[in-house]
Amino acid sequence: MSERAYSAVPFADVRITSPFWRERLETVLDCTIPSQHAKLQECGILESLKLPQPPPPLRIPRNSHGLSTQIFWDSDVGKWIEAAAYALAHRRDADIEAKIDAIVDDLKRAQSPDGYLNCWYNGREPEKRWTNLRDNHELYNAGHLIEGAIAYFRATGRRKMLDIMERYVDHIAATFGRAPGQRRGYPGHQEIELALIKLYRLTGDRRRLDLAAYFIDERGQKPHYFTEEALKRGDDPASYWAGTYEYNQSHIPVREQTRMVGHAVRAMYMASAMADLALELADEGLKRACEALWRDVTNAQMYVTGGLGPKETNEGFTEPYDLPNETAYAETCASVALVFWAHRMLHLDLDGRYADVMELALYNGALTGLARDGTHYFYSNPLESRGQHKRWAWHVCPCCTMNVSRLVASVAGYAISAREDGVAFHLYGGFATTATLAGVKVALTETSAYPWSGEIRIAIDPEKPAAFDVKLRIPGWARNATAAVNGEAIELKPINGYATIRRLWCEGDAVTLDPEMPAERLYAHPNVRMDVGRAALRRGPLIYCVEEADNPGGPVQALALPRSSPLDAEWRTDLFGGAVTLRAPAKRLVPGKSDGALYSAEPPAARDAAMTALPYCLWANRAPGSMQVWIAEREG
Amino acid sequence: MSERAYSAVPFADVRITSPFWRERLETVLDCTIPSQHAKLQECGILESLKLPQPPPPLRIPRNSHGLSTQIFWDSDVGKWIEAAAYALAHRRDADIEAKIDAIVDDLKRAQSPDGYLNCWYNGREPEKRWTNLRDNHELYNAGHLIEGAIAYFRATGRRKMLDIMERYVDHIAATFGRAPGQRRGYPGHQEIELALIKLYRLTGDRRRLDLAAYFIDERGQKPHYFTEEALKRGDDPASYWAGTYEYNQSHIPVREQTRMVGHAVRAMYMASAMADLALELADEGLKRACEALWRDVTNAQMYVTGGLGPKETNEGFTEPYDLPNETAYAETCASVALVFWAHRMLHLDLDGRYADVMELALYNGALTGLARDGTHYFYSNPLESRGQHKRWAWHVCPCCTMNVSRLVASVAGYAISAREDGVAFHLYGGFATTATLAGVKVALTETSAYPWSGEIRIAIDPEKPAAFDVKLRIPGWARNATAAVNGEAIELKPINGYATIRRLWCEGDAVTLDPEMPAERLYAHPNVRMDVGRAALRRGPLIYCVEEADNPGGPVQALALPRSSPLDAEWRTDLFGGAVTLRAPAKRLVPGKSDGALYSAEPPAARDAAMTALPYCLWANRAPGSMQVWIAEREG
Repeated sequence: MSERAYSAVPFADVRITSPFWRERLETVLDCTIPSQHAKLQECGILESLKLPQPPPPLRIPRNSHGLSTQIFWDSDVGKWIEAAAYALAHRRDADIEAKIDAIVDDLKRAQSPDGYLNCWYNGREPEKRWTNLRDNHELYNAGHLIEGAIAYFRATGRRKMLDIMERYVDHIAATFGRAPGQRRGYPGHQEIELALIKLYRLTGDRRRLDLAAYFIDERGQKPHYFTEEALKRGDDPASYWAGTYEYNQSHIPVREQTRMVGHAVRAMYMASAMADLALELADEGLKRACEALWRDVTNAQMYVTGGLGPKETNEGFTEPYDLPNETAYAETCASVALVFWAHRMLHLDLDGRYADVMELALYNGALTGLARDGTHYFYSNPLESRGQHKRWAWHVCPCCTMNVSRLVASVAGYAISAREDGVAFHLYGGFATTATLAGVKVALTETSAYPWSGEIRIAIDPEKPAAFDVKLRIPGWARNATAAVNGEAIELKPINGYATIRRLWCEGDAVTLDPEMPAERLYAHPNVRMDVGRAALRRGPLIYCVEEADNPGGPVQALALPRSSPLDAEWRTDLFGGAVTLRAPAKRLVPGKSDGALYSAEPPAARDAAMTALPYCLWANRAPGSMQVWIAEREG
Repeated sequence: MSERAYSAVPFADVRITSPFWRERLETVLDCTIPSQHAKLQECGILESLKLPQPPPPLRIPRNSHGLSTQIFWDSDVGKWIEAAAYALAHRRDADIEAKIDAIVDDLKRAQSPDGYLNCWYNGREPEKRWTNLRDNHELYNAGHLIEGAIAYFRATGRRKMLDIMERYVDHIAATFGRAPGQRRGYPGHQEIELALIKLYRLTGDRRRLDLAAYFIDERGQKPHYFTEEALKRGDDPASYWAGTYEYNQSHIPVREQTRMVGHAVRAMYMASAMADLALELADEGLKRACEALWRDVTNAQMYVTGGLGPKETNEGFTEPYDLPNETAYAETCASVALVFWAHRMLHLDLDGRYADVMELALYNGALTGLARDGTHYFYSNPLESRGQHKRWAWHVCPCCTMNVSRLVASVAGYAISAREDGVAFHLYGGFATTATLAGVKVALTETSAYPWSGEIRIAIDPEKPAAFDVKLRIPGWARNATAAVNGEAIELKPINGYATIRRLWCEGDAVTLDPEMPAERLYAHPNVRMDVGRAALRRGPLIYCVEEADNPGGPVQALALPRSSPLDAEWRTDLFGGAVTLRAPAKRLVPGKSDGALYSAEPPAARDAAMTALPYCLWANRAPGSMQVWIAEREG
């Protein structure tokens, strides 16, 4: 916050021209959004909004902890509306709008006279509202519905849903807080904080910001709200099914947290809200807390794909360097939320470290969660598979489906930021916008075949000559980058990952930038015990993997890559409408003299094998087979 | 079964003189057996036998499947009696005998007038007996009580418990079978089959053998008993918590099984009973089924330690070559039971393949389950740990504790077999016995410092000169072995892993055998994806591991062993009363130029490190720390 901060140019103001993102976006518009609505219908989720009705039997039974994912169906609806609204910003669609309006009508009918709105509680156990914030997702549901309402209002100008949610927020604000008679509660699953900040940014209503700040700062205070709440319910707080309040990051106040713990999605939503609040409130303490958590995550707890949370049991973090590959949980939602967090950190400090992680999580950990057909998904994203990890058409907890669709539908919003005297490019990939810089309207048109190629051209067309900064992110993975203005080479002197070009820009000006995009090996810190003796492959923003479809002849885990083997990038038009693969002479280990014995004093023999690596985000779109990211390395 | 089979010399007829087993045995006698009784007392297990009493509250609550380990407490009692009785065969102990007699009195009181005996059902829900063989362990409990009764009778000649169990067996035999009015059931957890065969061998009562054969052959027949039984209970068979009858190996009839599946301990007990029946009934079909399963287990599903069952969820098998190290379940009981199975296979065919696996599982997978102090245990035996895997003093399911104590207390029973005209040595380690060979009483005294050294001497002292075979197992791990009779070198021509020396033996004769015991690397089949690029270390029958206590300076997983490094065996008197460690010049990977970054294009640097490897069976007896069996290998 040393200099005036850049603000993200909203996705709706950015056009996408690159084939890579264009194709993803159109798949989401054409296939994902409609098919998700059909799934919500089919699963009874939409039906569950139609109150009053006699409580139907539980479609999704309670688990052994007495919890059912059905209790957060409202959030799925909210997230779908948000994703669908983002799609509408690209292309209005009367059918989708009618579907949203029908849902909004149901929500209107479901809302209590006092503003409370939760279809589970209103339909099933109205007397129990606000009795279990720890487990039952009321505030989380509210958050997603609010985000949906904001997105729908922004896309269409229709404010019915927004009004419903404003009433609900008023009710929440009256219920929770530090004033006498209020409950000192906060969400078990963070999310509403992000929604409230968005609402503040939309309406300017400062009370929304204050409520978000309250939720963040109250978290983990003593006496512990979830303990008091459990006692009030007659439950033993010590028998909390998750075992520890680390699960939802309420073990200590958030400003004291320096290690990222517990459920990864909750953690990322919380950190995103903390970064937002640090910006809005110029709160240096919150910013420092964010930075400490950022260091912990990126230095010790993040997969090379930008995946987060190795463990299934808590859907979250374990301990530093514990990053198993085959059993990696690495929930799609967690990487989506890491994109959110990194984007917010970037607007606290324009530092390429944040943009690098944002890009990494976007292209790899998050995007992998959506199949190329737009209708199949990964919930968890392991870095190795023996062939059993397959995409599903839906999930008992469909959170990831709409998280990835809302991200893709709004991806352009992560590309460019601006302030009065400058524009900053974070992501490349054919993003174009018009911004007012130094008081002049400027058309900015970035053209590239990114992520396949690093050759980037940015046309800068001010309506009249104007002096302003053009800040170009020089990706951390680029060992070298060259640039030119109007064909004339310039020297790049990047500071914190951004090179600044300041000049009097005139219509027809163009900057070219070419960050070298060599294919290269990555090595993990030796404390990552799973990756000792292994290398991952990266080219530009993409992490690669070897998949059996490209490497027939047995499990890909038997491939070993000599350290001296060159990695050749190859443009393959036959794969997924065009993709760069990496090819390398490698070895395939086969039983040696041991004659197939399970163990032998004879080392396996090594046969020559041509290895082909595919971007990780494209795996599992063909016949199921083995896959791995961290490839055994051979010296020499 | 081509030639007359060898029979095991019972452990009670074998003296142990080697320091290795003598020390283990004495620890079990002095510490393990008494402390296990105290634990049975403390946990309420002994109290639960005291019927009639009002059913006390569940000490161990039912899990989400409605099951409680408390339902098989009878088996823990049976197994403790068996272990304690084996101890008595070494050393009578009035206190232990009084404790057993008190239990027997309780069992007598608990037995129903019709012979039925199950403390859970008789105390708690007598009307439900025999309604859930699939889950509720009645026949399993019976089996362990029978084995306890047999062992106690053999040790003391007291037959009260044996009589109780004979009555119960009569009741079981009347209840189950193919006659009209009988139930066509069989155990959900195999075990009683082994007990019935032992009972047959003790009493000669052929009905016991027939009942065992019935249980084995009925298993998996159609209509499926567990399905019919569930329907009778009003349960939906499709909602079986384990998901598949593979869990208890009843998915198809046993003779059709060629892949070892499901719960590993059940599988091993079943296979042991199948081998016993193949022998007793000269049943070639069962023998072939055993052989197919043996090939499957040893060629594709066994850890290098003789551990079985990688997965916690089913405590069992998954798929070929799926042998994760850190998350290995490898239950102690499963390796104990693999010793049982291998021992029985060996008596179907005197083939060193079986003895090799028996020895491997005994010294590594099984023995590791018991701490050197004799009062701490491992239930699961991973091949890698980051330091969190610690021994426990007891377990909610204490099955492994008494399985390992009964094995150690009877270990001498696996060493030697005999038939009329010969004796066969399978295990070495200071085992001595007297056998009647060719009609002459022969003292056989094997002396060695095995497993630390391969120098073995066998004194053969017949009362008068006699001609018979002395069969010496030449371990599969011995690349070379030399032998001499009375100091004169002889040529060993082993067939199927056994060298036969036939001569006229006279008092004072001695055979020396020296299987070379070099320290060496083992490699896994390349399909074992976890072990690609890694080597395990073996010396003689012992698998080694690197443990942090011997390799300070960070996680042992950062150690890399050059393929060319010599492995030096070193006798260490300072470790555990004497043990051979392996030392090798190795490398420790440390962050290179990457300055501690989680991922870097720079490979880690490799510092020289002296690596010390310890026998796996000795790990986790000092300060907790990281450990691994499969060490990253560097070429060159």
